[in-house]
Amino acid sequence: MKASVYIGTSLDGFIAREDGDIAWLTSFADENAIQAYDDFIEGIDSIIIGRGTFETVLTFPDWPYQKPVFVLSGSLTHLPDKLGAHATLISLKPAETLTYLSDLGYRSAYVDGGQVIQSFLDQDLIDDLTIATIPVLLGSGIPLFGRLSRDLNFTHLRTNSFPNGLVRSYYRRLK
Amino acid sequence: MKASVYIGTSLDGFIAREDGDIAWLTSFADENAIQAYDDFIEGIDSIIIGRGTFETVLTFPDWPYQKPVFVLSGSLTHLPDKLGAHATLISLKPAETLTYLSDLGYRSAYVDGGQVIQSFLDQDLIDDLTIATIPVLLGSGIPLFGRLSRDLNFTHLRTNSFPNGLVRSYYRRLK
Repeated sequence: MKASVYIGTSLDGFIAREDGDIAWLTSFADENAIQAYDDFIEGIDSIIIGRGTFETVLTFPDWPYQKPVFVLSGSLTHLPDKLGAHATLISLKPAETLTYLSDLGYRSAYVDGGQVIQSFLDQDLIDDLTIATIPVLLGSGIPLFGRLSRDLNFTHLRTNSFPNGLVRSYYRRLK
Repeated sequence: MKASVYIGTSLDGFIAREDGDIAWLTSFADENAIQAYDDFIEGIDSIIIGRGTFETVLTFPDWPYQKPVFVLSGSLTHLPDKLGAHATLISLKPAETLTYLSDLGYRSAYVDGGQVIQSFLDQDLIDDLTIATIPVLLGSGIPLFGRLSRDLNFTHLRTNSFPNGLVRSYYRRLK
């Protein structure tokens, strides 16, 4: 079971402003960025998000995920009926979550959302890390990374930069 | 008067561990990195550091800077005699410092050290920002960036990546 992070951050490492605003990020979502995201999504077969990300995407006009979503939450008791088979609520720890998805036949998970990414990294459960850096300093916001119980070294696979200033680097965990 | 930052950080934005350790960074200082640094230094004619960085470089076996250094400090009263003309103590605010150096005939300053970089960025006094990213997550340490009173947008000039995994991006402040 492979777990991947694919995310955009400001130059100073924030994935959203403190109020959740990501307009500074979405303004960089041009054709190149959409194509790269679609290529990434094609390579995964499940998506793991936390309650915070789930509640954010519920405010979007359309459900944004194209693969089965698993919502990790210890506090939610059910998901809105309208989501149907799009999303499943589970209450498991990071390693248990990957085992559970593997037992269901999934091979690769896209781990999305600040808190969930940090908890998976702290358990050293992330294999691939793709970071798109937006050329802006925000000064404050919701940080991508958090405290870790040990260093995590990565191999740099490649970096692509684009005319709008977005720089995307692909890393793989070096174990 | 142009002010430039040229610095290495971990993937999670730290320039040193909490105890000041930078072995994780210096292990990436290969020929490519030294050449790029030398090229950068050739383009500047003065260096501004704070007390923290000054006290750190005093512990190095050799004085590491090849251009005149100005140590910004409100608490130091004098610098060790052995430094001679290598370093000058000044007690000025960021904007005043640049004016002072400009009046002395300098054209471009290398702004180095976490606290000083943050104070110059918060005053929007940095023109060029070059960041070398090391492929490691440390989880904690001394952060490169701090709070800002406003967003700072940059133009991405170029990014170079190297076989050891270092990725260096060159940015210019977009005003």
